[in-house]
Amino acid sequence: MASKRFNCIANLFFLFIIISFSIVESSNKIRARRPCKTLTFYFHDIIYNGENAKNATSAIVGAPAWGNFTKLAGQNHFGDLVVFDDPITLNNNIHSSPIGRAQGFYVYDKKEIFTAWLGFSFVFNSTEHKGSINFAGADPLMNKTRDISVIGGTGDFFMTRGIATITTDAFEGEVYFRLCVDIKLYECW
Amino acid sequence: MASKRFNCIANLFFLFIIISFSIVESSNKIRARRPCKTLTFYFHDIIYNGENAKNATSAIVGAPAWGNFTKLAGQNHFGDLVVFDDPITLNNNIHSSPIGRAQGFYVYDKKEIFTAWLGFSFVFNSTEHKGSINFAGADPLMNKTRDISVIGGTGDFFMTRGIATITTDAFEGEVYFRLCVDIKLYECW
Amino acid sequence: MASKRFNCIANLFFLFIIISFSIVESSNKIRARRPCKTLTFYFHDIIYNGENAKNATSAIVGAPAWGNFTKLAGQNHFGDLVVFDDPITLNNNIHSSPIGRAQGFYVYDKKEIFTAWLGFSFVFNSTEHKGSINFAGADPLMNKTRDISVIGGTGDFFMTRGIATITTDAFEGEVYFRLCVDIKLYECW
Repeated sequence: MASKRFNCIANLFFLFIIISFSIVESSNKIRARRPCKTLTFYFHDIIYNGENAKNATSAIVGAPAWGNFTKLAGQNHFGDLVVFDDPITLNNNIHSSPIGRAQGFYVYDKKEIFTAWLGFSFVFNSTEHKGSINFAGADPLMNKTRDISVIGGTGDFFMTRGIATITTDAFEGEVYFRLCVDIKLYECW
Repeated sequence: MASKRFNCIANLFFLFIIISFSIVESSNKIRARRPCKTLTFYFHDIIYNGENAKNATSAIVGAPAWGNFTKLAGQNHFGDLVVFDDPITLNNNIHSSPIGRAQGFYVYDKKEIFTAWLGFSFVFNSTEHKGSINFAGADPLMNKTRDISVIGGTGDFFMTRGIATITTDAFEGEVYFRLCVDIKLYECW
Repeated sequence: MASKRFNCIANLFFLFIIISFSIVESSNKIRARRPCKTLTFYFHDIIYNGENAKNATSAIVGAPAWGNFTKLAGQNHFGDLVVFDDPITLNNNIHSSPIGRAQGFYVYDKKEIFTAWLGFSFVFNSTEHKGSINFAGADPLMNKTRDISVIGGTGDFFMTRGIATITTDAFEGEVYFRLCVDIKLYECW
């Protein structure tokens, strides 16, 4: 009988070792690549060109030596830094009711083709969503889809992390573009 | 007897399945919303206005077409990009001994009201704290309190994540403001 | 016999409590400070000075009132904002085959000495690496080594976090510098 009990305790002990090891490992090894939340939004950017002050939602605020502040620079806009406060909508219609604002900046960062680097937030204050989602990353915008990082969040999106897949849904010359942002959160709290 | 032992092993096995499942889940589900560290600091920003070169801790370095570099622009400073190196203090007295520097940038990003987007670090190199805390996020600065993300850290704040709650503790015209930053870290290493 | 079985179940129950508690704790306490991946790269920055348009990989796009866009400003370049698209190489030879691009911005942010704040990505699209690594943090560049945060990643670097240790490997006047970036990832998926 004593040996049976010993067996049981030995099993428990062995199990405990395995599990403890798994827990420590889990912090940087075991991860489910399954989103805990997904969201899809559109946002609309109208850049200031000297004549559209009323409608513009963004403006050039930095430019290289060869640039200016009412027209995107040559060389694929390299060096143009744009600040924006763009409406977020649930569909691709700029006239639909905005459910939040996309706020931050992007900078064109390559001379040979269009690429950008983005730092911005989705800011929500509606019955549906309260709080913010913060983004950063490279946007090689000639690619059909490109991924940037969700680096944090607040309110309903407390401490969240994930990936946002961006698609250029439409653009009109150099003044308007619309992005579709497909957010997949992999860390939820 | 054999059946009892079987029972015990069956229990262990069942337990193991449950726990393994919990571990995998834990990576994106179970999270304690209890800070592992809290810190409160103040920092002080004196913007360069063309006449205060000696005392200024920040400067406008980007501005929209309608702005300039010694005065914050109209339309709620929309588009003004400010770089700063501000003293961090433990209390609200700018003359108390600084314990670190707040370094980075903010950009005013809305025409209708004051809002900003921040990217900056707290840099410490004292006996009390060594290392840095990195922040990013939207600052709707007309709100009494607003949350931004702690997106990482180094040294004493290795790999940390969390939330920083910002309060405007004081401001004087357009030249000086003081922020209280209440940091709650939820990921500590 | 019944009491033995009870013992075994009691043990299991007790074990379960301990383990459950450990799991919840693990989310913000137990962490192995052992990298799950390490990578070392170099990148090369040639700043536009008005005469090197062909070779330049970066340009000043923001500057304080006392600065301009073809020469880094006085006061340790305080306020100069630089956008870059720099080649990444595996060794310190700028002429070796680039394996990706470092894209983003840095801003000099202190009047008394050289310090900067960085927001950028390593963008890879080769057989060896596909995807991006996103960085942010303070760079007190007079220090031999300094740490910034890896705040996220995409593709091969999906959801990654970690620390990048930067060393200035070489510089030539104000036009060229080469950084060695030693990346240690602590969160891998």
